[in-house]
Amino acid sequence: MIHTNACKLYKKIGAEAVLTEQSDLRQYLTGLSTSFGYVLSDKNGNVFYTDARYLEGAKEALKDTDIAVKQFVGPLENLLKSYKQIAIPLSRTYYGEYKKLSDIGLDIVDSGDVFAQEMSIKQPYELGFIKKACEITDRAFNDLLPRIKEGMSENETAAELEYLMRLYGASGTSFSTIVAFGNNSSVPHYETGERKLKFGDIILIDFGCKVGGYCSDCTRTFLFGDDGKHSEFKKAYDRVLEAHMLLKEKLVSGMSGREADAIARDCLAKYGLDKYFTHSLGHGIGINVHEYPNLSPKSLHTLTDGMVFSDEPGVYFEGDFGIRIEDTVTLADGKVISLTDSDKKLTII
Amino acid sequence: MIHTNACKLYKKIGAEAVLTEQSDLRQYLTGLSTSFGYVLSDKNGNVFYTDARYLEGAKEALKDTDIAVKQFVGPLENLLKSYKQIAIPLSRTYYGEYKKLSDIGLDIVDSGDVFAQEMSIKQPYELGFIKKACEITDRAFNDLLPRIKEGMSENETAAELEYLMRLYGASGTSFSTIVAFGNNSSVPHYETGERKLKFGDIILIDFGCKVGGYCSDCTRTFLFGDDGKHSEFKKAYDRVLEAHMLLKEKLVSGMSGREADAIARDCLAKYGLDKYFTHSLGHGIGINVHEYPNLSPKSLHTLTDGMVFSDEPGVYFEGDFGIRIEDTVTLADGKVISLTDSDKKLTII
Repeated sequence: MIHTNACKLYKKIGAEAVLTEQSDLRQYLTGLSTSFGYVLSDKNGNVFYTDARYLEGAKEALKDTDIAVKQFVGPLENLLKSYKQIAIPLSRTYYGEYKKLSDIGLDIVDSGDVFAQEMSIKQPYELGFIKKACEITDRAFNDLLPRIKEGMSENETAAELEYLMRLYGASGTSFSTIVAFGNNSSVPHYETGERKLKFGDIILIDFGCKVGGYCSDCTRTFLFGDDGKHSEFKKAYDRVLEAHMLLKEKLVSGMSGREADAIARDCLAKYGLDKYFTHSLGHGIGINVHEYPNLSPKSLHTLTDGMVFSDEPGVYFEGDFGIRIEDTVTLADGKVISLTDSDKKLTII
Repeated sequence: MIHTNACKLYKKIGAEAVLTEQSDLRQYLTGLSTSFGYVLSDKNGNVFYTDARYLEGAKEALKDTDIAVKQFVGPLENLLKSYKQIAIPLSRTYYGEYKKLSDIGLDIVDSGDVFAQEMSIKQPYELGFIKKACEITDRAFNDLLPRIKEGMSENETAAELEYLMRLYGASGTSFSTIVAFGNNSSVPHYETGERKLKFGDIILIDFGCKVGGYCSDCTRTFLFGDDGKHSEFKKAYDRVLEAHMLLKEKLVSGMSGREADAIARDCLAKYGLDKYFTHSLGHGIGINVHEYPNLSPKSLHTLTDGMVFSDEPGVYFEGDFGIRIEDTVTLADGKVISLTDSDKKLTII
């Protein structure tokens, strides 16, 4: 019998019953990606209730585990009649759902923090999926570079990159790939469009893929030929890279998210660039591409071994250019290990 | 001055102020795809509060509209001090958010039904995006067929199809493409894997793409060569197609979702196939690939001109094979128009 996360979470939460509907949390408990269902755990065990679309697949996938699979026959209230207390993730539960449970007289406790904390420390099988996603990310990027040609659109470039990730075994992207040419790079979350690549353009690509339901996240900024007009860009690039690498060198397990953020932010501040660094340094990565912990000026989250997060300092000069250098990293034996790691020295293709 | 949906929704909802945080609803109001922000509307107008990542892009995109763009400086409560009443979409608001607003003494009313209803009737510009997404869907499918070869994996086939959609102008997929070979087709929401294509395999592909933030959704089931063992499949295929086409012929504006569902379900029942039709006939399609209205045995939603939804009868014989035939359709002048429309006659490639 394989013990799933459903069993572990039930014990940690310590409520009479634990009800989980949110698709990412459900995936964490069952290991399955589904668009409908409830996991209900109590002292007698765990049941995954889902509909006909997923029933056959879930039964097969979970047959040797401590999760039973049953067809959901509503209303939900019927499953909860025997309980006095139920745990749900309050910050992720819609008001309507909360009210329904509250109205039937259940004592409601919060499972959200336990989920966020537990999901942030990756188990070996989770780290395996993330490492595979990161390998595919690096390989696809390296194979994209020789395919980039003058006149290609941002959308075509994204299409090539997403195709390569799929071909190398990804189930899809972590998010919609950002490809920004020229001054489009100055918009931190640019929406990829039809702009065509010209000689001398800056190229910023923010991308990632999914393997086994787990994400990678990576950004590279580089030049399509050198038209001799990029001295400011090159200077700023070296400083963003310095900030990026400094985090990898200085961060140790036990630091807070704000201490981590400050390593990179203070480095950019030495050059007066901190006012152009308009976002957080990083975010947890797992089933979700943004999850606990945060690496930001206010974050009190403690960074510990087994966590996976991004290291992504960036500077943006409105209307002119932007630079972001991002890797997915993990903490092991107290130190940072880079999981995406394609070349970050300024590349001119 | 361009009048946005923010203005229209504010009037329809009729509350003192309307606060919208959910990314799909925010996209409906602003026309922009963003991962953080609030739209706040009151008698003085509409403001989109977002963070530095989106500020520059949003200001440019909304400069000629009735939505002002400002940087969000928390806490949220500070923006709401002058109001007694606020509308939020209750069924889409997390309990924590609800409680925060309730605790500061605001009278809370629900904006959810107005959003669902209004978003279901597509405006010309929205229909334009969906039509474009559907054209790309058809074109990519037609161009995929000659590329399918023996020994290709499900993942490779999905990669080719997603690449073609991207290349033809899609910003991404509506959902993770399902490619199921052989008896994998009997799992209604199969997760695409590494199975390799063999002569005589059934191929089921459920896919769609996004253009301008709007989705398409399409499923085709066909044969990779005819090994002479598919007489049951062929018989069932013709009956699913009959049910699919009957909806297009018989559905008229004003019918309920359950009347629509019954057209196809009763057709399959004539052949004793209704017990293998284990899901709803269809769902609304727009910014979300699943939205209001539902076409299901219990749905009281009224189907009216301007709505866009799927017509997707399917039958699944566990462990053996499955068939689903799906188009994205709209209602205009009382009748169904098919927006995806690649060949549905049983194809043997």
